[in-house]
Amino acid sequence: MSMSKIVDVKFTLRRHEYEKPFHITGSISSESRNVEVEITLESGIRGYGEASPSFRVNGERVEALLAVENVVKDMITGFDVRNYAKIFEITDKLFAFPSLKAAVQFAVLDALAQELDVQVCHLLGGAKSRIETDKTVGIDSIEKRVEEARKIFEEGFRVIKIKVGENLKEDIEAMMEIAKVTKGAKYIVDANMGYSPKEAVEFVKKIYQAGIDISVYEQPVRREDIDGLKFVRFHSPFPVAADESARTKFDVMRLVKEEAVDYVNIKLMKSGISDALAIVKIAEASGLKLMIGCMGESSLGINQSVHFALGTGAFEYHDLDSHLMLKEEKFRGKFIQEGPEMRVREE
Amino acid sequence: MSMSKIVDVKFTLRRHEYEKPFHITGSISSESRNVEVEITLESGIRGYGEASPSFRVNGERVEALLAVENVVKDMITGFDVRNYAKIFEITDKLFAFPSLKAAVQFAVLDALAQELDVQVCHLLGGAKSRIETDKTVGIDSIEKRVEEARKIFEEGFRVIKIKVGENLKEDIEAMMEIAKVTKGAKYIVDANMGYSPKEAVEFVKKIYQAGIDISVYEQPVRREDIDGLKFVRFHSPFPVAADESARTKFDVMRLVKEEAVDYVNIKLMKSGISDALAIVKIAEASGLKLMIGCMGESSLGINQSVHFALGTGAFEYHDLDSHLMLKEEKFRGKFIQEGPEMRVREE
Repeated sequence: MSMSKIVDVKFTLRRHEYEKPFHITGSISSESRNVEVEITLESGIRGYGEASPSFRVNGERVEALLAVENVVKDMITGFDVRNYAKIFEITDKLFAFPSLKAAVQFAVLDALAQELDVQVCHLLGGAKSRIETDKTVGIDSIEKRVEEARKIFEEGFRVIKIKVGENLKEDIEAMMEIAKVTKGAKYIVDANMGYSPKEAVEFVKKIYQAGIDISVYEQPVRREDIDGLKFVRFHSPFPVAADESARTKFDVMRLVKEEAVDYVNIKLMKSGISDALAIVKIAEASGLKLMIGCMGESSLGINQSVHFALGTGAFEYHDLDSHLMLKEEKFRGKFIQEGPEMRVREE
Repeated sequence: MSMSKIVDVKFTLRRHEYEKPFHITGSISSESRNVEVEITLESGIRGYGEASPSFRVNGERVEALLAVENVVKDMITGFDVRNYAKIFEITDKLFAFPSLKAAVQFAVLDALAQELDVQVCHLLGGAKSRIETDKTVGIDSIEKRVEEARKIFEEGFRVIKIKVGENLKEDIEAMMEIAKVTKGAKYIVDANMGYSPKEAVEFVKKIYQAGIDISVYEQPVRREDIDGLKFVRFHSPFPVAADESARTKFDVMRLVKEEAVDYVNIKLMKSGISDALAIVKIAEASGLKLMIGCMGESSLGINQSVHFALGTGAFEYHDLDSHLMLKEEKFRGKFIQEGPEMRVREE
């Protein structure tokens, strides 16, 4: 069975335009530039992963990822994918390229799953047979935000993610108006670090007083401000999540020790598979709750998070909608998407 | 592939005599009574596990384990072993029968591995190809303890576990004498909760002053005395481990939050596979170190820990010697033992 040794690694740049520019606190994107990772085994089997680097969150540049193709190739060539824990340990050294770490680690699991004739979600435990994703309303004029939310709700999505953080007054108004046209929906509100701790608390108090419920309130304050997160957590009627503050398992262990948040938003692009698995277990042991999110992955990259979520069954909320916002010629996920629902074909 | 559904579960009592009575703080055993768990899949494949209950550590009785055969059968029959995370979640409810939880969870992995034509250690990551176990010197007269240690050293073991905790003065003397006849060996010293915090510190200071090194100092004080553990940790020149204090992932999370120990001794019989996997990840994220130990498992039960250790590669020390102290008619491990070395056959 040395046929499951890695013999080749190949990186390819993939560009996808957004359906429309995607605006969040401090950033507007019109295109997503990702790196497709292909690993080839001696048996000829090919495993695929996708890195969607984020300069804002991870400090990563797509050019830098492409430049380390041979470094990664030298790191993992010759290893047997059945020894995936070894490969995870070695690729943990790619901590300055976390999205690449995720792509390489997933490509290894994808190849192993094919060798064993199962799906990756089954390798990871097969905990769930289906999940439901939210869809996101970016920052825009109040009218356009409301219109977008209404459209998402009419498409059948029952969890709506709302980006805030650039203008407290407009955010509160938009939230109130969106709630009127999407009765029965759940809301994940994401400030992407845009508020001060006191603004963050003001936002949720106003929303609470209006009788609106927020399911998760993501990263209200700066990533380094752990005390600020904790301040918001203990003054907010709604659960508070760390996203930008929670990249590695070490970050999450600290957040747990400091009782700073109710939720962590795991993104494979921040943590890779290896740290994401560790965060799942830390959450199990500490009462922390989890959601899973994404950067700018295409269907190939979202596939990774879908299988991770189905396999571990670890998440209360799934925010896996980037591929729904990108123009793609061909759907490349090994999963079925029907409206908000994502599942794998049952054999 | 519904052929991988569980259709039957069977428990069998297995008794094994110790080669000689095994004496540790507060307990002398002449026989080990374990429960063999057999699960059968629709395909006819059979997976095996073994529960070695400990009344002293877990409050478990073998009679009680045997009595819940039908409960467990009802719990897991009909589940597909490819959805092992679901089965782990359900069997986590068996927290009052942790050794049984371990056996059932391992039997599921054993069956799944056969379905996929791999070994369990590969399902768990295949991190290591071999490990080395210690062997244990029980409590006895000083002469007999020294003689036993010499014999173990001559058999080729390079890590010797030494039981202490019933008589501080004799323990110190025995330790000094053992060190003289086993030069070059490493020592794991286990007090099984026998000392007060101050006795525990006195022991290690005397040993340190004599120029002897201890690799791990296990559970010097009572299990509930987390402050006592921490006191010993910060007054001991050697790393301090929790064993009886660390049964579940929740226990370990608390130990980490309180910075109470350097090491945790994972035993599948205390934690099952599910909590053991969580503890491995908590350790990765917090700098905690790990060893793996056993109760009174036969080769069938030790097999579980060997595959867990090879798969995760998470352990600095392996204390997997119970089967070496028991009389067994037939070796039933899916691993090769040569002196202290344990490995699986490479395909």
